Amino acid sequence: QSNVSLYGIVDLGLVSEHGGANGALTKLTSGIGSVSRFGLRGVEDLGGGLSAIFTLESGVKADTGEQDSAGVLFQRQAWMGLRSTTWGTLTLGRQYTPFYKVFSDVADPFATSYAGTARNLFPVSGATTRASNTVKYATPNLRGWSAEAAYTFGEQAGSSTAGRQTGFAAGYEQGPLVVRLGRLDRNSDVAGGAQHDSGSNTILAANYDFKIVKAYAAYERDKGYGVGTLANTSNPYGGVAPTPSTDARELLVGVTMPLGRGSLIASHIDKDDRSGYNQDARQDAIGYVYPLSARTSVYTAYAKIHNKNGAGYTVGNNAEAGSGDSAVNLGLRHTF
Amino acid sequence: QSNVSLYGIVDLGLVSEHGGANGALTKLTSGIGSVSRFGLRGVEDLGGGLSAIFTLESGVKADTGEQDSAGVLFQRQAWMGLRSTTWGTLTLGRQYTPFYKVFSDVADPFATSYAGTARNLFPVSGATTRASNTVKYATPNLRGWSAEAAYTFGEQAGSSTAGRQTGFAAGYEQGPLVVRLGRLDRNSDVAGGAQHDSGSNTILAANYDFKIVKAYAAYERDKGYGVGTLANTSNPYGGVAPTPSTDARELLVGVTMPLGRGSLIASHIDKDDRSGYNQDARQDAIGYVYPLSARTSVYTAYAKIHNKNGAGYTVGNNAEAGSGDSAVNLGLRHTF
Amino acid sequence: QSNVSLYGIVDLGLVSEHGGANGALTKLTSGIGSVSRFGLRGVEDLGGGLSAIFTLESGVKADTGEQDSAGVLFQRQAWMGLRSTTWGTLTLGRQYTPFYKVFSDVADPFATSYAGTARNLFPVSGATTRASNTVKYATPNLRGWSAEAAYTFGEQAGSSTAGRQTGFAAGYEQGPLVVRLGRLDRNSDVAGGAQHDSGSNTILAANYDFKIVKAYAAYERDKGYGVGTLANTSNPYGGVAPTPSTDARELLVGVTMPLGRGSLIASHIDKDDRSGYNQDARQDAIGYVYPLSARTSVYTAYAKIHNKNGAGYTVGNNAEAGSGDSAVNLGLRHTF
Repeated sequence: QSNVSLYGIVDLGLVSEHGGANGALTKLTSGIGSVSRFGLRGVEDLGGGLSAIFTLESGVKADTGEQDSAGVLFQRQAWMGLRSTTWGTLTLGRQYTPFYKVFSDVADPFATSYAGTARNLFPVSGATTRASNTVKYATPNLRGWSAEAAYTFGEQAGSSTAGRQTGFAAGYEQGPLVVRLGRLDRNSDVAGGAQHDSGSNTILAANYDFKIVKAYAAYERDKGYGVGTLANTSNPYGGVAPTPSTDARELLVGVTMPLGRGSLIASHIDKDDRSGYNQDARQDAIGYVYPLSARTSVYTAYAKIHNKNGAGYTVGNNAEAGSGDSAVNLGLRHTF
Repeated sequence: QSNVSLYGIVDLGLVSEHGGANGALTKLTSGIGSVSRFGLRGVEDLGGGLSAIFTLESGVKADTGEQDSAGVLFQRQAWMGLRSTTWGTLTLGRQYTPFYKVFSDVADPFATSYAGTARNLFPVSGATTRASNTVKYATPNLRGWSAEAAYTFGEQAGSSTAGRQTGFAAGYEQGPLVVRLGRLDRNSDVAGGAQHDSGSNTILAANYDFKIVKAYAAYERDKGYGVGTLANTSNPYGGVAPTPSTDARELLVGVTMPLGRGSLIASHIDKDDRSGYNQDARQDAIGYVYPLSARTSVYTAYAKIHNKNGAGYTVGNNAEAGSGDSAVNLGLRHTF
Repeated sequence: QSNVSLYGIVDLGLVSEHGGANGALTKLTSGIGSVSRFGLRGVEDLGGGLSAIFTLESGVKADTGEQDSAGVLFQRQAWMGLRSTTWGTLTLGRQYTPFYKVFSDVADPFATSYAGTARNLFPVSGATTRASNTVKYATPNLRGWSAEAAYTFGEQAGSSTAGRQTGFAAGYEQGPLVVRLGRLDRNSDVAGGAQHDSGSNTILAANYDFKIVKAYAAYERDKGYGVGTLANTSNPYGGVAPTPSTDARELLVGVTMPLGRGSLIASHIDKDDRSGYNQDARQDAIGYVYPLSARTSVYTAYAKIHNKNGAGYTVGNNAEAGSGDSAVNLGLRHTF
């Protein structure tokens, strides 16, 4: 038998976007639900409850064949480490931030997928999602409690602080309840160059499975330099370009609900920009996912954003930033 | 068992090219017969004659390790879809055009391989071969008849026609006979920018297996903007650079013939440039493929082009455009 | 069963470098021991002692997910060929040079790994390690004797010599003794352009396993144009940039020694620059590798270089060139 598993997802569908300055756009898009990908992963039992583990995961655009990031084959994940049933898990490499896992796994009923992805209004991109050169430690689950801490090296000669990033998450999971706090601190200094305030993202999220519905709620605070990157940076609505916020709050409430053989998803998000620009926004989203098998599903989703005071948020999906303030999705997702 | 198959081809050999302005060139080349590649593909039975299918295929240069296209990992194919034994097959993504499949599978006895590839004179490149952002539907085979239709989104905001492409093919296959018509229409407009006539390629091809020989014939018409890209665009013969034709016809006749344990291949192609430049050409080609096993073969081939009135066609192979008007190949091909 | 094996290595650890002009640097690095990689390889039995073989191997940076070389997916190896138990092995493609295999497999007790890699002072980089467009022939092992010869096409139109490279190695291996000679000749001319002297690298290496220790010795001579590329080309110590030598000798002595369940490695290298700059250097290195299983190990290593007369050598590792004259490694290596 082999020491490695080859796995992946192919997700393709139609996206129709409206409301952008350049006009409507209908397109075939990869990764609406889950970014299309392939990966290699392995587990080796070293005895005594200890295992060696690794993952190399590549994101691809299945509509064009492109890599997610030219030259970065395993842009999604590239790490290895040791996992102990007693002592927890230590991993090295390019990994999800503890903050992001709270956001995607606990906060967002859309799990960052489809038109309704909470990424449209929550500032989650780049190293907020995944960080290279990172050492991460996760505790075992202790009676429902667990925590993670991560350290990302700045790797700049002559400075141990410039460019570094730290992350933390902790939470409780028992029966129908999950509650979790995530935090990210980023130092954007350049050794011998620009010095910035550091920026932080903090999220508190919970969900509860009432069986008839599963309810979601999350609150996030983003403060400081570089915390508010816009998903679509090309001024999608024309006129004066929006200003990324350096002081914002986001509030999400949402549900998932079994409906027929499928699952209905809905969320509402309020973004409160506390900078002088006061570029607030809100989003309403609904989606439906219907399984053709355990590995294959069809889906549809719709979301609409209301931008205020020249805010420039767009309805995207898991793979693209979007070009307008509303979008419809219809697609197919297959895992292997 | 796994949900995915890993497959591929490695093809490497020697190419000696003559007749180019810079002199003769002998080199090690990947993909003379079949472009070297690896791919992932899967089929999941969804019940009721319905399956989910996908393919991700990457082209590589096995002489240097390079990707066929930097940044486009799955440049060859990237698609998924649903296949029904009753209703046919619907696929989304980066796919072969219906036109190209007629050209490669029915028209050319060399199957676009070796020095004798019909690509040397038939204008088949870029989106004529494969198109990204494409929805394709193929009928089931109905008493020998089958058809395909494809639609490629232009994906330009504010215009639903700019950059789009449509494809169609239909044919009949019964016993020793295959006959098939293919058509491609391309709109090269840019939304808010350049407006062009649209271009089209139309091919009618047939082959018939007489057992002693299998005979091939094909006729193609290329008309309009952008239909006549040259394989080698760097003016290989010096002097006044040739002009890609916007109105051309190609006629091919060829055979494949069992010879010893191997197979002999020969073709003759006439290219008729009906533009004012009248840059006609003709090609004669011969090849021999000898199997060492079902998966491994050795091959040799030779082709010679006669260019007229400053035409700039070159003898290439499945992977390269070539640098002169004749070339010899000797190589090894292995599938896995 | 499958016709292809998927294999690889993930190697990640911490590196702390000292002595560079920009200050100390601590970082997470991929490939300290073995460059992180994945590959595809296959063997097909063709009968009569003949096999078809191929390898496609991709180097990756598991700390960032990057490819070793953007656009060159199988930068490490990409070749296929035929292997006969009687007649030897003929391979085509991108391959290790016969010279390099002597260097890495016979000469260096660190096997080019960790801080102590002999690459820090021996000029081994680019086409000295691997050459594209190469035909290689290896004899079978004849009573302990074996040899390899390689020819790399320059692939420049109008010249059969410009850019070509030839390689050769021969040796004897019996019981505890391995002794081997390697040679590389490179023509750096450009067809119709710059004409250079040709450069050569010659190495004589041996090791002998006394059981208590395994002893290593090697002597190399590098002479001519382009033989002395520096690993770190960005003038790591500031001031007047060092000059790559065109006439140098290197002498290595080293040992590996079982210690506990692990293995201790040590080496001393003297570099003698015979050019007018006389930029000599010497390196002392020590390392320890401890296996957690047959496939997984932890390691630590330290090396220190003494540069003379403005020499600019740096302590790197298998994947990186390094930024200073000493470095410590601590990492984890897993094969699959």
